[in-house]
Amino acid sequence: MDSVPNGGWLDGCLNVLAGMEILRRISAAYHGKPPVTVRLVDWADEEGARFGKSLFGSSACSGNLNLDEARELKDKQGIRLPDALKEVGIEFERVKESGKELQNAGAYLELHIEQGPVLLDLELPLGAVLGTFGVERHAITFRGQAAHSGSTPMNRRKDGFLAAAKMSPEIYRIAARSNGGVCTIGSCTTRPGIVTSVVEECRITLDQRHLDASALGRMLQEAKDASKRFSEEGRVGVTWDRLWEIEPILFKPELVDLCAKAISETCGKTHRLASGPLHDAAEVARAGVPTAMMFVQSLHGISHNKIEDTKEEHLEMCVIAFDELAEKTIQWLKR
Amino acid sequence: MDSVPNGGWLDGCLNVLAGMEILRRISAAYHGKPPVTVRLVDWADEEGARFGKSLFGSSACSGNLNLDEARELKDKQGIRLPDALKEVGIEFERVKESGKELQNAGAYLELHIEQGPVLLDLELPLGAVLGTFGVERHAITFRGQAAHSGSTPMNRRKDGFLAAAKMSPEIYRIAARSNGGVCTIGSCTTRPGIVTSVVEECRITLDQRHLDASALGRMLQEAKDASKRFSEEGRVGVTWDRLWEIEPILFKPELVDLCAKAISETCGKTHRLASGPLHDAAEVARAGVPTAMMFVQSLHGISHNKIEDTKEEHLEMCVIAFDELAEKTIQWLKR
Repeated sequence: MDSVPNGGWLDGCLNVLAGMEILRRISAAYHGKPPVTVRLVDWADEEGARFGKSLFGSSACSGNLNLDEARELKDKQGIRLPDALKEVGIEFERVKESGKELQNAGAYLELHIEQGPVLLDLELPLGAVLGTFGVERHAITFRGQAAHSGSTPMNRRKDGFLAAAKMSPEIYRIAARSNGGVCTIGSCTTRPGIVTSVVEECRITLDQRHLDASALGRMLQEAKDASKRFSEEGRVGVTWDRLWEIEPILFKPELVDLCAKAISETCGKTHRLASGPLHDAAEVARAGVPTAMMFVQSLHGISHNKIEDTKEEHLEMCVIAFDELAEKTIQWLKR
Repeated sequence: MDSVPNGGWLDGCLNVLAGMEILRRISAAYHGKPPVTVRLVDWADEEGARFGKSLFGSSACSGNLNLDEARELKDKQGIRLPDALKEVGIEFERVKESGKELQNAGAYLELHIEQGPVLLDLELPLGAVLGTFGVERHAITFRGQAAHSGSTPMNRRKDGFLAAAKMSPEIYRIAARSNGGVCTIGSCTTRPGIVTSVVEECRITLDQRHLDASALGRMLQEAKDASKRFSEEGRVGVTWDRLWEIEPILFKPELVDLCAKAISETCGKTHRLASGPLHDAAEVARAGVPTAMMFVQSLHGISHNKIEDTKEEHLEMCVIAFDELAEKTIQWLKR
């Protein structure tokens, strides 16, 4: 199964094994002849741990994979992605042909352990996923002037770090106003970066995510406005460089409703939430297939970690609810 | 003359050449027999550009040099300090014997280009130096928790960068309250330091300077209190590690008065200011010799740079005023 180094036992595996059980249940219930064809997919290389490109299989299938970029990818040993695929009998230049498998797909369902603590905090076992966050990822560089820490009066300084530092509490305010978005400054570097000099250049990275495209746009604009304000206050320059972006991907509302209903019927309560991380389901949704996802609570609120775990009773509930969702989806497709 | 790579033409040289002229003037005025012996010293390796140890000559002479540390110093080519000294005929193990030259010294005077913009901002050519700043230099590490930038709600985060960032505007407030002190955060590093993770560990360096030891102590305590407050607000840990410290070194008040008087008489106005950087004068003062320093305005407010310069009229004034100070000091010693 696809995973990350030192990853947990549920991320990825849960969906495939639950899906297998559900195929068995459907096959038995309909005596091998369900009203729609039901298939299980185990996506190749969702994590991108080896080649640094996540969602490889699903983006090939959805058609969004950039073949020219992917062709050049190498692992740490210098092995190229096309050569690694060849070893397991797959022709790189033909991976997008897998897209035909999605052509007549009526719906796509995915079960996943939540990779955050939302359900844990709400003490809920299961949640219906509304979609995956859109992401705006930028590097912001503030440029001031290096100056001696002993001989430069405070009011003469052009301090790149001061302007960058003011962004940190500000992004918490921006996120709070955004109704559901998150903002992260993940790294900060300083130049010359020595103890005896005012910081000339400070570079931070900003990652902003929201399920609503216009709210995400507002968050970005507010961060840009704030950076301009802080740069003017401190008489330093500021430049922005986009590192990456992706639009929010919303799942099919009717299927999200069915997912919420299946959860309610199984455990009495439900909750709708966005997914911060991307999932293969997002690629399938981008390909135009009606899609829904179900999350099960993560015991420590984290994933991609050996301590990733879920209570056995929650695992049981999620398989039952996911099966219920599969059945409701079959009925929905029959209409 | 001792300097730094790409340094300016006045730092260091100004004092030695002005001193030479003043020796000539005194010798002529007293027909070679002044009431006190007057000597000129050109200190070895004030900057420490080659071996990373500043104030080498003056600290050897004052007795403050740590021989065991200095013995192990190497330059970039791997040449040891003792071997470099041997090449120019100096025995490393005997450098402290130079201290006897200070034993009966009645006073020490030094002229220097200001290495900051204080006189420039005040539009004053000359200033009387009160002493050199005491320095508290620390690394501060905030320890939070790495967490996925997409799946971790803002209120669940333990963000090392947020706590560190709050320190930046705070040190400006601390400096403003301190009546003359300066504070600098010169570097910031983040771990894991990736765009998709909340910062687990953020390390900043803090350099605090003040002429008054108790004010410096208050500045340090206020910074520690603030770091504790921010760490508690953000539920992150904080630790402090001292990197270096030196106490403020005050020059002889009577000589500072004479210096201010000599300046007033030369150019009508005077100003008393502290020195942020250390100088050989500080080592001589630590050895118990009554000491004073005079600063001349730096045209761009900077030193250790090729663009370092001083107006010719200010250079003339500083030599005249410094000579006046030398004469006043001779008279003061005669009493």
